[in-house]
Amino acid sequence: MPLPYLFIFSLLAAATSDALGLATPGSTKNIIGAGVTPAFDAQFPGVNGLGVSIAHVDLAVGGVVPLHSHPAATELVLVIEGTLTLGFISSFENKVFVNTLNRGDIMVLPQGLLHFGINSGNTTALAFASFSSQNPDVQITAFALFKNDFPTELVAKTTFLDAEQIKKLKGLLGGTN
Amino acid sequence: MPLPYLFIFSLLAAATSDALGLATPGSTKNIIGAGVTPAFDAQFPGVNGLGVSIAHVDLAVGGVVPLHSHPAATELVLVIEGTLTLGFISSFENKVFVNTLNRGDIMVLPQGLLHFGINSGNTTALAFASFSSQNPDVQITAFALFKNDFPTELVAKTTFLDAEQIKKLKGLLGGTN
Amino acid sequence: MPLPYLFIFSLLAAATSDALGLATPGSTKNIIGAGVTPAFDAQFPGVNGLGVSIAHVDLAVGGVVPLHSHPAATELVLVIEGTLTLGFISSFENKVFVNTLNRGDIMVLPQGLLHFGINSGNTTALAFASFSSQNPDVQITAFALFKNDFPTELVAKTTFLDAEQIKKLKGLLGGTN
Amino acid sequence: MPLPYLFIFSLLAAATSDALGLATPGSTKNIIGAGVTPAFDAQFPGVNGLGVSIAHVDLAVGGVVPLHSHPAATELVLVIEGTLTLGFISSFENKVFVNTLNRGDIMVLPQGLLHFGINSGNTTALAFASFSSQNPDVQITAFALFKNDFPTELVAKTTFLDAEQIKKLKGLLGGTN
Amino acid sequence: MPLPYLFIFSLLAAATSDALGLATPGSTKNIIGAGVTPAFDAQFPGVNGLGVSIAHVDLAVGGVVPLHSHPAATELVLVIEGTLTLGFISSFENKVFVNTLNRGDIMVLPQGLLHFGINSGNTTALAFASFSSQNPDVQITAFALFKNDFPTELVAKTTFLDAEQIKKLKGLLGGTN
Amino acid sequence: MPLPYLFIFSLLAAATSDALGLATPGSTKNIIGAGVTPAFDAQFPGVNGLGVSIAHVDLAVGGVVPLHSHPAATELVLVIEGTLTLGFISSFENKVFVNTLNRGDIMVLPQGLLHFGINSGNTTALAFASFSSQNPDVQITAFALFKNDFPTELVAKTTFLDAEQIKKLKGLLGGTN
Repeated sequence: MPLPYLFIFSLLAAATSDALGLATPGSTKNIIGAGVTPAFDAQFPGVNGLGVSIAHVDLAVGGVVPLHSHPAATELVLVIEGTLTLGFISSFENKVFVNTLNRGDIMVLPQGLLHFGINSGNTTALAFASFSSQNPDVQITAFALFKNDFPTELVAKTTFLDAEQIKKLKGLLGGTN
Repeated sequence: MPLPYLFIFSLLAAATSDALGLATPGSTKNIIGAGVTPAFDAQFPGVNGLGVSIAHVDLAVGGVVPLHSHPAATELVLVIEGTLTLGFISSFENKVFVNTLNRGDIMVLPQGLLHFGINSGNTTALAFASFSSQNPDVQITAFALFKNDFPTELVAKTTFLDAEQIKKLKGLLGGTN
Repeated sequence: MPLPYLFIFSLLAAATSDALGLATPGSTKNIIGAGVTPAFDAQFPGVNGLGVSIAHVDLAVGGVVPLHSHPAATELVLVIEGTLTLGFISSFENKVFVNTLNRGDIMVLPQGLLHFGINSGNTTALAFASFSSQNPDVQITAFALFKNDFPTELVAKTTFLDAEQIKKLKGLLGGTN
Repeated sequence: MPLPYLFIFSLLAAATSDALGLATPGSTKNIIGAGVTPAFDAQFPGVNGLGVSIAHVDLAVGGVVPLHSHPAATELVLVIEGTLTLGFISSFENKVFVNTLNRGDIMVLPQGLLHFGINSGNTTALAFASFSSQNPDVQITAFALFKNDFPTELVAKTTFLDAEQIKKLKGLLGGTN
Repeated sequence: MPLPYLFIFSLLAAATSDALGLATPGSTKNIIGAGVTPAFDAQFPGVNGLGVSIAHVDLAVGGVVPLHSHPAATELVLVIEGTLTLGFISSFENKVFVNTLNRGDIMVLPQGLLHFGINSGNTTALAFASFSSQNPDVQITAFALFKNDFPTELVAKTTFLDAEQIKKLKGLLGGTN
Repeated sequence: MPLPYLFIFSLLAAATSDALGLATPGSTKNIIGAGVTPAFDAQFPGVNGLGVSIAHVDLAVGGVVPLHSHPAATELVLVIEGTLTLGFISSFENKVFVNTLNRGDIMVLPQGLLHFGINSGNTTALAFASFSSQNPDVQITAFALFKNDFPTELVAKTTFLDAEQIKKLKGLLGGTN
């Protein structure tokens, strides 16, 4: 009877795939020093229709989860190992809320708002991110701007960034146009 | 500016209170060998209106989180330390799904269904339970039956239990009638 | 044109089937002296997507609807004939609310909380239960504990019940292990 | 402790008030030969936040519940005594679905669609209407057109009715303009 | 790549079809002097699952959008050209709210309540109606009563209208019975 | 009786305030050549609880509504005058969807995803944006990064932008740190 399989999932085993395309799975040997292993409905059908999911977040020393938002869920981060600096930008006057979290600390990152995480300690950091949806969806700002064919001219016009800066980052992240 | 306080919370500091009335907080020296420290909206206003919350679950060797359900949320358990045996009883033909979880394993416990956790390893266990609501609510079966003034005669009639058994457990858990 | 069929349903005709597996349909000649005939979406597709359903509840003198909960709906009971004692156990300090209802009385049983009904009069009782969902789902406590292969040892550990008691009721209700 | 009061309600006792303003309560001695006694959140706070409510519907021989809709709920009618002809008009090509219901029959009337009930038998009829909301709200077509100060000219223009007909019914139902 | 097609739609091009069956599309040469061109999910799949839609409303001088309701959405009307008289009938004591709107004015018509629009100016009027659903659904009162096979006797009994009036309008709008 | 006021609102009159802080109201004489006048629940209480709102968008020749997202609503843009280039970045592989819209064209911008608008014609443009919420909320990327006290070092680390670029834009938009 395969049903129990639906309700259990190993985040460690899952680290052999990389659903977000964000990093070498189970590893932080990449440009951002961070690895994210999700258990959303695509990876873990057991959460289908149940309104909750989770992800395993590893950060090397100095590692960064770049600025991003989740269009479809609030995130609750729990730190298990190391020290994380987490922040989000509210829609009220663009105020920025930044906190330093250690083992056992949690922080809420409301739905749709830009947020980030940085390993600000001297050791590897481990955190878990719980979500108020089986599929929080994700939009990483730098990738949305520079890792696609979004024309440099349109990026410049709609973000105030200089064309030079845009082209440099398109080069770094693999974008064109 | 007090607002950032709303978005961050220490589950370790919270362990000095015991919102569930389940156990000595931050400790597992109690009848069930388990301690639960919640960060629901009552303890952590930062999750208000955001549809997600979390709890810190400690189990001594042999410790047990008794059979219970959450009327208002699905639960997603993540094991951090030790070995847990988790199970739930589905509404489909009363089928029971039991799994053994180790570090990094997760299991889903759907809204409103009876479930339990047992430390089935040789060391202390630590798990985190994420919920699809800011207030999952909880009803522990043994407490609902035996830790109140629910008349023994009514308990017997509606559960098939023997009056003797009921009275014994009312004595153990502090119930009357 | 078959559509009208979707919007109308006979609870009396439906009594020839027994969707809940609770009792001889249309009859109360069973272990609990009660018969429940549902018109949920499985029996009555007309309620699909519309957030409401109903069930016909018969109780012989002394008949009992055993302790149970609906994971997915609040129930509103209306008494048509006879006298019913209804109760539910709240999640607030396990408080028990018990009322006696006669013709025309209604009582609310909130989603996910344990509740029961007993014919406490001298005549057959008839009630209708309306639900805030097209599929309230149901979990009967005694069946969840004793009418399956839930191992006696696990039941004992997670409910405080004695193994002897558990085995006796597994025998009565058809459970194993 | 007043809480149990919140969860129980007598529809018969409630019949001494007339929340809908539709008829002499508990009586069908009025222009339509029908009496409706609701247990919505205004009358029965116990259903607050729980997504379900109910009403007691009496019809004299020939009595009529006039064409109306519920902006905020689907209705499920259950016939207890007598014979009712129930109908609703769907939004698909204005198709009309009419059925005759006897004891134990139920019919679904989807949210927001026009529907009506007529006692088409030779005896008094009794039915209960369950709703998928604690407050279904109601708009009776004839009252919306003729029992207010909606100018005759605007009613005529927007319904194709003749001014003479409108003025006659304003006279009957108490409207002006 | 066909996806962009899903997210863009021309209301002018759409005027070559007539999804509501209300009028000659893109034209107001009909019995009511009004044309409605919707971009609901049936016409514009791009709004599927996103909870919003829109319609283009043209009114000739003296044109009328007849009394109707949307069972599944609140409507927000925006006037672009001309002068419109808009009104709705609330469920509170059948009170009627009528306003005159010019370019740039908006009015809200709550879900499920009867409302209408009349070109009360001397020029053609253009308005856009936004909805809180991808499919607001619609029920036009005169069509629900007179443009189907709803038996005259039942219409009369449930609306207080005279049989003569009903038959006249059935003739006008194409109803039978 | 003040109630009708709640249901009607003049977007033109509202242009004397500037709720978004984005531009000189009713004017496009500002850094972006664009003016946005919202009718959200803060400005127009009539939409409270009804799940829909609207905004008036003016763009001078070459005017730009900068890249932004709405955390709490899908947007549907309708062009009334001029020619707009609208685009959004999807969460699927950061794909960009760009379209040119003229009078009568609509485009959907799904909840939480980055999008922008540019007047790409030779005349002033006018558009209306409808939302699937009474309060869509808004986060403009450039303001979130550069119009607050978000430390340059953190912006750089989490967006890959150069410190020089960040400081230049903080200077332009009024940010510090």
